[in-house]
Amino acid sequence: MDDRRPIMTLLTDFGTDDTYVGQIKGVIAGICPPALVIDLTHAVRPQAVEQGAFLLETALGAFPADTVHLAVVDPGVGTERAGLAIRAGSHIFVGPDNGLLSCVVPLGLRPAEPSRIAVPAGVTAVALRPPPARVVAATFHGRDVFAHAAARLARGGAVESCGDPVDSLVALPPFRARERPDGTLEGRVLHIDRFGNVVTNVHVMQLHGRSLAAKLGETRIAAFVRTYGEGESLVCLIGSSGFLEIAEVNGNAAARLSADLGASVEVAPAGL
Amino acid sequence: MDDRRPIMTLLTDFGTDDTYVGQIKGVIAGICPPALVIDLTHAVRPQAVEQGAFLLETALGAFPADTVHLAVVDPGVGTERAGLAIRAGSHIFVGPDNGLLSCVVPLGLRPAEPSRIAVPAGVTAVALRPPPARVVAATFHGRDVFAHAAARLARGGAVESCGDPVDSLVALPPFRARERPDGTLEGRVLHIDRFGNVVTNVHVMQLHGRSLAAKLGETRIAAFVRTYGEGESLVCLIGSSGFLEIAEVNGNAAARLSADLGASVEVAPAGL
Amino acid sequence: MDDRRPIMTLLTDFGTDDTYVGQIKGVIAGICPPALVIDLTHAVRPQAVEQGAFLLETALGAFPADTVHLAVVDPGVGTERAGLAIRAGSHIFVGPDNGLLSCVVPLGLRPAEPSRIAVPAGVTAVALRPPPARVVAATFHGRDVFAHAAARLARGGAVESCGDPVDSLVALPPFRARERPDGTLEGRVLHIDRFGNVVTNVHVMQLHGRSLAAKLGETRIAAFVRTYGEGESLVCLIGSSGFLEIAEVNGNAAARLSADLGASVEVAPAGL
Repeated sequence: MDDRRPIMTLLTDFGTDDTYVGQIKGVIAGICPPALVIDLTHAVRPQAVEQGAFLLETALGAFPADTVHLAVVDPGVGTERAGLAIRAGSHIFVGPDNGLLSCVVPLGLRPAEPSRIAVPAGVTAVALRPPPARVVAATFHGRDVFAHAAARLARGGAVESCGDPVDSLVALPPFRARERPDGTLEGRVLHIDRFGNVVTNVHVMQLHGRSLAAKLGETRIAAFVRTYGEGESLVCLIGSSGFLEIAEVNGNAAARLSADLGASVEVAPAGL
Repeated sequence: MDDRRPIMTLLTDFGTDDTYVGQIKGVIAGICPPALVIDLTHAVRPQAVEQGAFLLETALGAFPADTVHLAVVDPGVGTERAGLAIRAGSHIFVGPDNGLLSCVVPLGLRPAEPSRIAVPAGVTAVALRPPPARVVAATFHGRDVFAHAAARLARGGAVESCGDPVDSLVALPPFRARERPDGTLEGRVLHIDRFGNVVTNVHVMQLHGRSLAAKLGETRIAAFVRTYGEGESLVCLIGSSGFLEIAEVNGNAAARLSADLGASVEVAPAGL
Repeated sequence: MDDRRPIMTLLTDFGTDDTYVGQIKGVIAGICPPALVIDLTHAVRPQAVEQGAFLLETALGAFPADTVHLAVVDPGVGTERAGLAIRAGSHIFVGPDNGLLSCVVPLGLRPAEPSRIAVPAGVTAVALRPPPARVVAATFHGRDVFAHAAARLARGGAVESCGDPVDSLVALPPFRARERPDGTLEGRVLHIDRFGNVVTNVHVMQLHGRSLAAKLGETRIAAFVRTYGEGESLVCLIGSSGFLEIAEVNGNAAARLSADLGASVEVAPAGL
């Protein structure tokens, strides 16, 4: 078996009801037929850059070195915002310069609020040139700009060949809850999965092994379990990406708690 | 890298909740393992042949020469309607003879109403023979007839080897609004995308560069913008396939306007 | 063309809104890049093991020999239930030991109720060892245990290399209606497809060519047709997998009949 095969991922807010994703794959197939293109998700909420950035960052670990990640959640398509190609560590990223690719910035260098920061040392970023000799639709850079660049990178092209170097990019704050002086964590809901599990920005490293209880709205959840098959009713657990989730055993926690993206979650010592 | 790889697309109304699409891919994998099969969409409204034809026609441009397009929106499955394999230009098509494959007919040769017309010069069409030595389920020609033919064509088989030539096929009218003598365009909604953008059959070529306003139901939309990131509230723009769309900036135009497939859209000089 | 390509299928209840399926494919791509991974469905109802088992069993026939089927509907993830790798006939299966892989047991050997039975003669089953040198998330064995094993099997590894042999596994009853002494069949709804077709566990072999009528709730459906394009209003037909379906011509039978998974269906001689 020939194992030298370019791996790519796609993450968008395009959904799969339209042919947009198919058209992107068609462009890639025309440029780099051997590429294996893996859908991460196309169900990012329309224009929800932060949710997209979170889902991309938490999925990365499953992919081998040299994977090219094409991400498009792009409220500013067709405006002045740049498109980026980035090499960071052993992975390559292509997408709009709006924070979606924040995972290329080490946690310690991320800003406190979404803002433009210096490209970190060891990371190479360029502003994409539109592909030559092709009409670019103002509304569909995913197909007409990003897919072209990503496919050329999957073929082995250098990031530097896709455009001119930039020295700054837009980054989001780290996906971590705020720690109050008393040790309480002020978190937020970043994602709700298919099972209604409420995924927060409280990371397992922030729990320091303490016994804690979560509060979402008026509901306090003190039961901490290891996996979905344990406990009863509402429980807290650490999901597969290391973030605190609130789940309902054999149920849908998000529906039960009327929880939506952005809702506040407070995590405090269990005794409080 | 070995770039000689057959490219196929799939477009159906099967959805992705069932295993129907997976079974089609299984059949293809058994006959032509190297094929790269790209999903265009499986969310065509059940039995909505016109919507399927529109989505196929507007996605074609993204695919390289020799792509085999397998399309199944087939209210008449198991009845007398023929299955077709067609070579037109540099692409190959497989699907039911019900207008779904109208894109093989040049715009100028399409009928005024859906009807059977002569196969255009330069286009080769055959009526599919069922595959030998296999039980064909009356309800699933997508798997038992069409996928077999498409996979053999992807392997390099000739269209002529799949069945007997036919000299007519069912075609739909061109996806173009009607032009009234006063220059007003009478269009229809052909598709609503994931973002709630209302896609019409008014093509950019019909606007002749004029300043226009669209009317959908009782709502008049005069703002014409270049991309989704511009303007405010309801706007008109030309989508990535060249058709007029009505969009709501950071919103869902279809929901706001209660627009559904088939709704009338009128486009008139902006001053009227 | 190089036809030696490992074929895999995926069937889960993960949905496609999250990146879970993408992460599984990332792990597979890292271990077995040439594999062709085909989605059967990810829309099994959350934790509906029986529905998953039915959809897997009815899709198998479309896949070539040596296909590796990875199935994950796993309410017991992280608990004591074992993970299995199984060779049965010419196919290979990986998934939890909860009945989801019942298709490896011949119909005549299936239990009357879900229960643990002896591994049938000619079938090889092992309890999966966790992959070495990797952290296993308690909540995501699909990625951290099952995908690893399935990808190694797709590379040609032997089932025996994935773990220690087991001599029993959990199996579900055969997907067949109960036959009453008077010939009446007592069936159940196992699946509802995208078109609203109500798929039952009444198999065509149980009809013995008799003229029958189905009853679902208070509605009696006597019309028996060959394909969806025939008849009018509510009809019975044999679907592409050999099971009795209740369909509405140009409509949605499940919505019309308020039918859901598990609902009773009675099939009796047409004259009764």
